[in-house]
Amino acid sequence: MTNTFFSRFLPKEPKFFPLLKEGADILQKVSGLIIECVKSTDHESVVKYYKLIKEQERKADQVSNEIFDALNTTFITPFDREDINHLANRMDDVIDGITSCAKRIALYKPKSIPVQAVGLAENLKESSGCISKAVDELDVLKKNAKKITEYCNELHDLENKADDIYEHFLMDLFENEKDGVELIKAKEIMYELEKATDTAEHVGKIIKTIIVKYA
Amino acid sequence: MTNTFFSRFLPKEPKFFPLLKEGADILQKVSGLIIECVKSTDHESVVKYYKLIKEQERKADQVSNEIFDALNTTFITPFDREDINHLANRMDDVIDGITSCAKRIALYKPKSIPVQAVGLAENLKESSGCISKAVDELDVLKKNAKKITEYCNELHDLENKADDIYEHFLMDLFENEKDGVELIKAKEIMYELEKATDTAEHVGKIIKTIIVKYA
Amino acid sequence: MTNTFFSRFLPKEPKFFPLLKEGADILQKVSGLIIECVKSTDHESVVKYYKLIKEQERKADQVSNEIFDALNTTFITPFDREDINHLANRMDDVIDGITSCAKRIALYKPKSIPVQAVGLAENLKESSGCISKAVDELDVLKKNAKKITEYCNELHDLENKADDIYEHFLMDLFENEKDGVELIKAKEIMYELEKATDTAEHVGKIIKTIIVKYA
Repeated sequence: MTNTFFSRFLPKEPKFFPLLKEGADILQKVSGLIIECVKSTDHESVVKYYKLIKEQERKADQVSNEIFDALNTTFITPFDREDINHLANRMDDVIDGITSCAKRIALYKPKSIPVQAVGLAENLKESSGCISKAVDELDVLKKNAKKITEYCNELHDLENKADDIYEHFLMDLFENEKDGVELIKAKEIMYELEKATDTAEHVGKIIKTIIVKYA
Repeated sequence: MTNTFFSRFLPKEPKFFPLLKEGADILQKVSGLIIECVKSTDHESVVKYYKLIKEQERKADQVSNEIFDALNTTFITPFDREDINHLANRMDDVIDGITSCAKRIALYKPKSIPVQAVGLAENLKESSGCISKAVDELDVLKKNAKKITEYCNELHDLENKADDIYEHFLMDLFENEKDGVELIKAKEIMYELEKATDTAEHVGKIIKTIIVKYA
Repeated sequence: MTNTFFSRFLPKEPKFFPLLKEGADILQKVSGLIIECVKSTDHESVVKYYKLIKEQERKADQVSNEIFDALNTTFITPFDREDINHLANRMDDVIDGITSCAKRIALYKPKSIPVQAVGLAENLKESSGCISKAVDELDVLKKNAKKITEYCNELHDLENKADDIYEHFLMDLFENEKDGVELIKAKEIMYELEKATDTAEHVGKIIKTIIVKYA
């Protein structure tokens, strides 16, 4: 059911916005928790934060399912149904990436968590803030297209910074970590965080696609 | 050529469904073969199964091309052409991932194949079954939307289980494999299998998008 | 703003084609530079080529932004806006992958650059040529759909060859590289190149989707 030009003048169904905002809120919470998780100095603390993150991830899954159900029972949606579905899925993927990073720390028990993990986690927190602000404005897309575009461009810049942190982490690791297994553990843990920032940038790209179509 | 509301009442072109089913059948065969492949206890057996898988992968490529050609010569398609194309491509990607896993075992000649590979391969076989059942019902999408959604949700759950197998495999590997090169070989082989389950879940997401649009 | 059947007979906005061609030109330049970069025999040469590549990558970012802005200020576009946006983004991703490979060589300072890197870089140069030729014909899509499809199929074949180079590189590496850290460095560098060929193939898939929709 694609939106026709005419359908834009019909009353819009507002329930998607609160659900998308709920998803963005969970993402913000989770990216706050991963900062604490990677600052942990003992295994108990890692496990504690992993459990808290996992709990949020389950909530996010429920929100995704609610959005999917709402898409299938609502006749008129504010954008193409598929774009909302795509956006909800990708926000969920960022949360999954963060959860996977916490899980890896809990399972692999590295001798120490790389210091640069804090930088990447803080970067993700900033990205989550941008996503949250962009999602907040989606219901007034036409009015605020320029502002939303700025948030998306910020996501792009943040991803570039995250890339830089990751590459310098690897350079450092190659120079200083002599234990092959510890090296791979650290790389696998950091890779999930870096990939989560990629996915966050991708959320920005989806929002930009929505702007291109509807703003 | 997008489907208009009106075009839905026109007779639909049925030839895509047999082609998509053919693709799903090959996927089922290939995921049966990879189970045998990872159970191999000698190199000859690995090579034999790799060749059988490669043969199927070539057939799947042909099916993809036939679907693409059919999309370009048919005026009315049951869904948006791009969705069928997307679905066919992604099913093909699962087959490519499985082929790549078999190729890696054949080329890298690991001292032993990780035991958890059987679990991942069986998980993939289940996923392929879900995809097959969902594709079988696509031609009665409106009637069976709920059932198809269940298959897609099952793909999501299976992927979560696959993730778990993979993470525990890595934990185990980090604890017990002291040979750095063998460790990386095992990781690279298992990574392809785990990625194939991700892609299978993505097939489910595409089908859900089709439901969102047309059911 | 989706194109209706009627809008296809309206005059089309031609400014996207020069911008897409500009993007494809940069991709060609960058894939020429990476060949030189991986042939480097000293660190200074690597750094020199990395800087040249980085410069082009920034230009490509600007082109992407110009395309996005143009999409938002043009009423009629030759294809759906989102398809142009998608195509521009993916071409940009190939350039990002090449830049990332050069950056990794500069940062990780491997003892030697794998010889197979030249093969992968040359493969990428060929892929870039195909993309360039396909983009050149986009403005006469209907007339040249068959030719464009051939370029896209060539991208698929090139990716298969790249896969093969990469797998054999890894096989070779596992047999001959005894230093774990050097092994991982080489793998990480080559992985970026291999992923760039994947992304180049994906550009072909997007172009094929455009053909499915409009040719």
